[in-house]
Amino acid sequence: MNAKVKGSRYERKLVQKFWDAGFGVVRAPTSGGATSRALPDIVAGNGKVYYAIEVKMKKELPIYIREEQVEEIKEFSRRFGAKAFIAVKLPYKEWRFVPIELLFKNGKNYKVGGKEYLKGLKLEDLLEG
Amino acid sequence: MNAKVKGSRYERKLVQKFWDAGFGVVRAPTSGGATSRALPDIVAGNGKVYYAIEVKMKKELPIYIREEQVEEIKEFSRRFGAKAFIAVKLPYKEWRFVPIELLFKNGKNYKVGGKEYLKGLKLEDLLEG
Repeated sequence: MNAKVKGSRYERKLVQKFWDAGFGVVRAPTSGGATSRALPDIVAGNGKVYYAIEVKMKKELPIYIREEQVEEIKEFSRRFGAKAFIAVKLPYKEWRFVPIELLFKNGKNYKVGGKEYLKGLKLEDLLEG
Repeated sequence: MNAKVKGSRYERKLVQKFWDAGFGVVRAPTSGGATSRALPDIVAGNGKVYYAIEVKMKKELPIYIREEQVEEIKEFSRRFGAKAFIAVKLPYKEWRFVPIELLFKNGKNYKVGGKEYLKGLKLEDLLEG
């Protein structure tokens, strides 16, 4: 199974967990839909709390994310009234949800290093709202 | 230009109008994403109000929508805390947003007839929240 297929399977399972916890969930099309604006991979909400989630399955840290992508997800979240997270899946580790405002700028990219990763929330934290 | 391309263009314009009014907007993938559950075509929110919108571009009324699709959009909206609408675009007419609870059951389908259509809201009503 290649990395893309595997990633998609993990992402589906994540969506399922939000669903099982009573959330409504949308997986955004990778194209960004209507415009060329970046959209988060997952938008989940339960009438009280809304999450905009960008999924990053990687073999190791640090993870670099393009400045433009981060800014656009921030903009979407600000408009939508969602809390924005980078969901990090490392091999044999549980998901960690790093609040987007914890990312730090590293040249033209934003970076998720070990420090940010460890500050990330767990899935249960998000599911409890 | 075929109907599908034309429909997609109208839908994009609709998404743009929500964006211009300050909303965050996601167009759901037609596949339904993670699961085989039906998702609304558009989910828009501004931190105060959330809309789940199913788009129907048709040549004329009435419009029939599969029972299952309507039930699944209701379920999504209940979970997400969104108001659900069928957005109807008829030729040379402005969009009308029919609240999903106004649809009536007609055998195995739900129906949007002239009466429901005329009760539909206008885009401005939705943009004002």
